[in-house]
Amino acid sequence: QEMDQMKSDFSENDNAFFLCSMALIIFLMQCGFAFLEAGAVRSKNTTNILIKNLLDSCIAIIGYWALGWALAFGDCPNDVIGLFMGYSQFFLANFVNYPKFFFQYVFAATSATIVSGAVAERCEFANYITYCSVISTIVYPILTHWGWHPKGWMSLGISAGFIKTTYDDFAGSGVVHLCGGSISLLAAWIIGPRIGKFVEDEDEESDEILGHSVPFAALGGFILMFGFLAFNGGSMADIVKPGEGHIVALAMVNTILSGAFAALTFLVIHFLYHGKWTLLLTINACLTGMVASCAGCNKMEPWACTWVGIGAGLIYMGLSKWALKMKIDDPLDAFAVHAGGGFWGLTSVAVIGHNGVVYAIASAIGGASDGGNQIAQAFAQLGWQWVCALAIITWSYLWMLPIFAFLKKIGKLRVPEEVEINGLDIFKHGESAYPLHAYGHGWHDFEKA
Amino acid sequence: QEMDQMKSDFSENDNAFFLCSMALIIFLMQCGFAFLEAGAVRSKNTTNILIKNLLDSCIAIIGYWALGWALAFGDCPNDVIGLFMGYSQFFLANFVNYPKFFFQYVFAATSATIVSGAVAERCEFANYITYCSVISTIVYPILTHWGWHPKGWMSLGISAGFIKTTYDDFAGSGVVHLCGGSISLLAAWIIGPRIGKFVEDEDEESDEILGHSVPFAALGGFILMFGFLAFNGGSMADIVKPGEGHIVALAMVNTILSGAFAALTFLVIHFLYHGKWTLLLTINACLTGMVASCAGCNKMEPWACTWVGIGAGLIYMGLSKWALKMKIDDPLDAFAVHAGGGFWGLTSVAVIGHNGVVYAIASAIGGASDGGNQIAQAFAQLGWQWVCALAIITWSYLWMLPIFAFLKKIGKLRVPEEVEINGLDIFKHGESAYPLHAYGHGWHDFEKA
Amino acid sequence: QEMDQMKSDFSENDNAFFLCSMALIIFLMQCGFAFLEAGAVRSKNTTNILIKNLLDSCIAIIGYWALGWALAFGDCPNDVIGLFMGYSQFFLANFVNYPKFFFQYVFAATSATIVSGAVAERCEFANYITYCSVISTIVYPILTHWGWHPKGWMSLGISAGFIKTTYDDFAGSGVVHLCGGSISLLAAWIIGPRIGKFVEDEDEESDEILGHSVPFAALGGFILMFGFLAFNGGSMADIVKPGEGHIVALAMVNTILSGAFAALTFLVIHFLYHGKWTLLLTINACLTGMVASCAGCNKMEPWACTWVGIGAGLIYMGLSKWALKMKIDDPLDAFAVHAGGGFWGLTSVAVIGHNGVVYAIASAIGGASDGGNQIAQAFAQLGWQWVCALAIITWSYLWMLPIFAFLKKIGKLRVPEEVEINGLDIFKHGESAYPLHAYGHGWHDFEKA
Repeated sequence: QEMDQMKSDFSENDNAFFLCSMALIIFLMQCGFAFLEAGAVRSKNTTNILIKNLLDSCIAIIGYWALGWALAFGDCPNDVIGLFMGYSQFFLANFVNYPKFFFQYVFAATSATIVSGAVAERCEFANYITYCSVISTIVYPILTHWGWHPKGWMSLGISAGFIKTTYDDFAGSGVVHLCGGSISLLAAWIIGPRIGKFVEDEDEESDEILGHSVPFAALGGFILMFGFLAFNGGSMADIVKPGEGHIVALAMVNTILSGAFAALTFLVIHFLYHGKWTLLLTINACLTGMVASCAGCNKMEPWACTWVGIGAGLIYMGLSKWALKMKIDDPLDAFAVHAGGGFWGLTSVAVIGHNGVVYAIASAIGGASDGGNQIAQAFAQLGWQWVCALAIITWSYLWMLPIFAFLKKIGKLRVPEEVEINGLDIFKHGESAYPLHAYGHGWHDFEKA
Repeated sequence: QEMDQMKSDFSENDNAFFLCSMALIIFLMQCGFAFLEAGAVRSKNTTNILIKNLLDSCIAIIGYWALGWALAFGDCPNDVIGLFMGYSQFFLANFVNYPKFFFQYVFAATSATIVSGAVAERCEFANYITYCSVISTIVYPILTHWGWHPKGWMSLGISAGFIKTTYDDFAGSGVVHLCGGSISLLAAWIIGPRIGKFVEDEDEESDEILGHSVPFAALGGFILMFGFLAFNGGSMADIVKPGEGHIVALAMVNTILSGAFAALTFLVIHFLYHGKWTLLLTINACLTGMVASCAGCNKMEPWACTWVGIGAGLIYMGLSKWALKMKIDDPLDAFAVHAGGGFWGLTSVAVIGHNGVVYAIASAIGGASDGGNQIAQAFAQLGWQWVCALAIITWSYLWMLPIFAFLKKIGKLRVPEEVEINGLDIFKHGESAYPLHAYGHGWHDFEKA
Repeated sequence: QEMDQMKSDFSENDNAFFLCSMALIIFLMQCGFAFLEAGAVRSKNTTNILIKNLLDSCIAIIGYWALGWALAFGDCPNDVIGLFMGYSQFFLANFVNYPKFFFQYVFAATSATIVSGAVAERCEFANYITYCSVISTIVYPILTHWGWHPKGWMSLGISAGFIKTTYDDFAGSGVVHLCGGSISLLAAWIIGPRIGKFVEDEDEESDEILGHSVPFAALGGFILMFGFLAFNGGSMADIVKPGEGHIVALAMVNTILSGAFAALTFLVIHFLYHGKWTLLLTINACLTGMVASCAGCNKMEPWACTWVGIGAGLIYMGLSKWALKMKIDDPLDAFAVHAGGGFWGLTSVAVIGHNGVVYAIASAIGGASDGGNQIAQAFAQLGWQWVCALAIITWSYLWMLPIFAFLKKIGKLRVPEEVEINGLDIFKHGESAYPLHAYGHGWHDFEKA
């Protein structure tokens, strides 16, 4: 019994340490998003996008502390209500499991952050505060209850005969990224394109609106890659039982492999078509690969993750072009990266993950006696993943569509034209990102010498 | 006994790992300070402020290795001397506990760094080297001996009848931030305002001196927030005994909660008065909240930390305005953030922390039999916190006032007027932050195509 | 036996956690290199250098997964072949030790990254892809087999009478940095200097080519320092046996001490000669000190590491000047930092590390009975370090010389003159780092108000 005590003490502390250190690094992803987005906007809207990302962390901690945690992981003695939400531990009353709370909070903050890229350079501050609060406090927490709480309906899945499905989404391809990415599409569509993004006269060529700093975008990309490894590895949420440490490392290796294949696939195809080695889009492709790896990085073989990556690169390319064609202006490609990557993640884990469609077919071809059942089970699982994906999108739109519509009606969705053209920084924030009179010096003779 | 051996081995290694990884992240705070400050100065002084922050780490490791550790945590067999300082293990002679040393070093480096913001854009290099050496080698280490060494006088506190006080400062609201912040005020006052900061003719409007890069300031802010979580969580310094892991996570949650409430409190009030959503000052307010949470983040309830945050936001606002009114030019608000936040941290832990004034009064109202004693104890503890705060300020000024006065006398406090007006980078460092002829390209036709 | 099981489970998980978290931070060094280099090039080549650093991580993971790991640490039942390379576990077939793989991968990515600084602003994309693949897939992995695999010939060393040598290189002064630094020299020499770097007319003064952003270079430097602590501490690769945690911390302390002494040594001498406190070169000197500490940071006394640092500062100064004199244009001083620091690291561990030349001589002077043997052993070890250093350089050149020569022949070594003069970003990547029309706003009246 002394040994059990010791084991339990070490386990609790090791897990707390693991969750806290991974959560710390995930927290830094806010900085990554901030700079990926800051680099992609024009200098006149830089302060605006930076403060949005700072406030994300602040709003999300308050919302997740007050309501979010309770809805996601609070106790739910009633099993029927428990299928859909938790309903206790509001304001963390009578609560002790802070490591898990801290870890879940940084996830919630991430899910709200994704959207800000899609509405950049034209979003009203009130709009931003509203959707950020709602997503991190209600929409996202309840999705995590569905998918990650043992009583949630997606997690319970269906059991019928030999078929047994469950929601398979290790690090949140669905509940984090598909949620954030879908809302991004909706938001970008309702808010409309930035002035000058799409020309009306078909003869005129569209002037691309370029971001003001490639280095900032790259800085954000690097920090996000760093954070993603912790995001996916940390999702193990436990590192004391036999083999768990190896799974954490496997998840990290798969994440970077998937990102690398997505990046190189996209880069090469883009080069073949356009003759340029694009950095900015390659970063996005790499992130799409990492998003797609979320769902199955803990159990896929590395070779399978190379296909996840290749698929992600292609999907990013397709969705990014589709959005442009639909005249949806999503400056950060948040939809293509997060919704595309997220959906592909949910799909690929049921296709090329262990027990997935590919394995089942290979097993049937190999003459397994229960080959047919394996195939049926694999497709049922794939179907369930898609049902869950649909549920995630539906739930997200059920909340956000009325909210965006209401904000549009009261004129708080988008800044006035004059503000958009001249930039949000000075009018809204009183702070120019690069005040002109802070530059220059008087040592002209010195410098030459 | 084999089990005890195993327990002790794991404990030692787990703690070493914990201390090292938290210290690593705290080390990165130097980068955070560097960019918060670089963003807040004009382009002509950017290299100057960056090299200061680089040298902080370098000088502090040498000073803390040679003297600092010995004064702070070296053995002190004599109990009377031991009240005030340690006096062995200079140059780490006969020393083994490197994890603790590494962790304490990154704290020492932080305490010296704080001041550089207050004297930015006009401080002589010699001045900087001097105060940085003195603070990280002598002033700060001895304060930590007082407050954090079991034999230190502040730590021992007073025992009289049922009253028992001790210095209550988990992560250094007092010894790190109040020390650094107080010295900042002194330094900014003695060195005087930057040329052009305050106009002499009352009719003229003061031209605000703006920093050259909001994104750099934000980058610094994000990195500091990241580092602060490790700073406060890591202060547990131990993660093997039952419950310690949870305390680490609680400390991190409280830190971000306090920062978030401080940021939003300030942001809303500032918006109501000025109609602008300021980013730069909101970052400062957020940091003030985190500074204030240092003292009690390990044991306060999250609801209490929301009040710590709200108070910190208000205090930052007040002290920042007061400094301007007093014509003290502190470009980074180092005084308001670190001294204001630090003092409020020391106070709040004795007011709204467990066994604090609020709890004691509530208990007395609730009819506790020893209600009067509880209140007496709580106020005694609050009084002791203030005594310690006063001691910290006094000690800091006792060293730094003569040093600054001497440097002023020999003309090494502040750069000559010509250098200040034209910028320190080229004259002092030979390196312009953004050399003009490193910009531009020749593809004008290409770019249009 | 239950206790042994528990011990083994905790050990495995603790080590996995340790390796993963250190590897995460080392992974971020790619971001550090990217910004150190981006700051040191002209704005017209910024996107180019950033994408190189992004692709490093991507190419290295694919190469190291497919071949690199197998060549470095794959099983090698045949002892003779095993002296030189592993030959199993290609594509990680039948592999489980992901934590070790992840950790070794981030090292491989680092070794390939070093070179990009030396050929910056003129290197063809094909050249870059080629050398990066070859280094991270073949050259570096085989070196690590030699030096770090128990069957490798450098690791086995020589045993003759009382003399016993082995390759002593804890964190890769030799296999990582000397390898990358030597190839940098070769690459910079073959590719030739940037246009305008060295004037042909001796009367004319050479116009220094300056980088476009000191803050970016400093950002990179700070991140690299942060990463270096994990690089050297993490090289313990194990944190469960008695005392290992202390060694990790000692390695980190030694790393920062060595870096600090190198930085201050260089800074002071440079100031005495030139009268300027240079930031950019001080960062390089600091990194050289850290590189030099790699070999022995796990066992040298801190006082010895101060000498490692001082030596590194001087060596950096000398080699940097030598390269200029030889008209070798290495924009990042990759040769001086990594080859100089690496060679000095291999040397110093055999001179001032425990049992090194200094200890042996001191012991002999002190009258040790086996003083002569100690001296012989110490010099033999030093000799073996030099043999290994020579082998590392030879092996690197054996691969890279033909490759660079071939690329030169087919015209894929260096970009055409027109592209170099006008910048690589727009022509090669279609992305200007700072697109002009992304700047500016229309609130001129506002700003004044």
